[in-house]
Amino acid sequence: MTPPDGNTFLPTARSQVRRRPQRAHYDEAAVYGVLDAGIMAHVGYVIDGQPYVTPTSYWREGRKLYWHGAAASRMLATVAEGLPVCVTVSFLDGFVVGRSGITHSLNYRSVMAFGRARRVDDLATVRTAMDAFIDRLYAGRPVKLRPTTDEELRRITLVEMEIEEASAKLKDTGVTDLPADEGWGAWFGVFPVETRIGAPQPDPRSTRAPTPDLTPYAEGSRLDDALAVAAGAYGVPVST
Amino acid sequence: MTPPDGNTFLPTARSQVRRRPQRAHYDEAAVYGVLDAGIMAHVGYVIDGQPYVTPTSYWREGRKLYWHGAAASRMLATVAEGLPVCVTVSFLDGFVVGRSGITHSLNYRSVMAFGRARRVDDLATVRTAMDAFIDRLYAGRPVKLRPTTDEELRRITLVEMEIEEASAKLKDTGVTDLPADEGWGAWFGVFPVETRIGAPQPDPRSTRAPTPDLTPYAEGSRLDDALAVAAGAYGVPVST
Repeated sequence: MTPPDGNTFLPTARSQVRRRPQRAHYDEAAVYGVLDAGIMAHVGYVIDGQPYVTPTSYWREGRKLYWHGAAASRMLATVAEGLPVCVTVSFLDGFVVGRSGITHSLNYRSVMAFGRARRVDDLATVRTAMDAFIDRLYAGRPVKLRPTTDEELRRITLVEMEIEEASAKLKDTGVTDLPADEGWGAWFGVFPVETRIGAPQPDPRSTRAPTPDLTPYAEGSRLDDALAVAAGAYGVPVST
Repeated sequence: MTPPDGNTFLPTARSQVRRRPQRAHYDEAAVYGVLDAGIMAHVGYVIDGQPYVTPTSYWREGRKLYWHGAAASRMLATVAEGLPVCVTVSFLDGFVVGRSGITHSLNYRSVMAFGRARRVDDLATVRTAMDAFIDRLYAGRPVKLRPTTDEELRRITLVEMEIEEASAKLKDTGVTDLPADEGWGAWFGVFPVETRIGAPQPDPRSTRAPTPDLTPYAEGSRLDDALAVAAGAYGVPVST
């Protein structure tokens, strides 16, 4: 994965965070930090004035986001036409519980990325990108897999979107206890929320125990950490 | 929370699941089952042809979804005008890892709900709804909190959306191992992903240990289960 180079996305009216601007970040390091820790995005697009939000897996390479699916997908058929798209990735990190209703909130990390998607038509490019996606998630795995046939590749629609603008919004706070809350007896504080990897379930037909090609997805690992590690490892030349 | 009554949302072209229709469900039980296990939705809306997807907390009462935020929010100002909205809730449940690229997938639960949002203007109704939100999340907690002032309430924009159409899409499968994958040596199976509650962090100014008003959010609990339990308990008369 391309490391952040200190660049910043220039916000316009579309991507400028209005509410709580102190939580907003436009630098690539913040935006990529959120994007690279995720696997599920919510893609927003418009058909005849009606908004749709479709959850889908995605990955990043440089300033481009990729996602894919079946050629029959309405979402992919629509966004691949070059229409404006909003790709949002978010993490819920905790519940902030105050002594008054108004001081209850959530801690979170999120990115909204704007651009126009286009379909990747060249089959060789689709093959390379799909292998790169697997390799990004599971370093070294593609060479262990049965190669994808051209027929299988043709059933996949792959889209790429150059990120034109993006903003990250991050909140990781304790309770904003107010003077008026003083003396009220409710417990107040934060309870964190964490997404972790469970015990691997080998396929009954598999003769192997879990192998290192699933590193860094060890049972009990935080998923966001594991994905960020995988994204960081991706693209690093492997000595063979 | 209103229990499902066996009704079904009638799909139209807008909500009909095209891809993998065998995974689609339109009955209230399936749709509410996903919605009631979540706290973060991705709200899609359109401004001047540009889609936006904003993550926000939400709750359900009957066929209505509610969400809220600061009066200054662009998202709320836009959707409160009665424009068409798509509210999507999704859970990533696992990684399906096959012996060929094409058999890699994710397990998930998701709902897309369509409707038009409107702002709730009456201050007394906003107060009741916000108390209900707290009580739904943390049963019995509102009476322990310092009451919200009218000034605080006026800083909140509350919107409600009657669900006109909704579809749930659920996938919880093992590997679709293909005949051509036979003999390839990569490990194959599923590794699950779970979102759980971490150790409570009492505010340093708090003199209380965690109290039962945070039930069912015990450390180590699955968040989706805890939220579903909370949603199920909501509205049940409490004997005092």
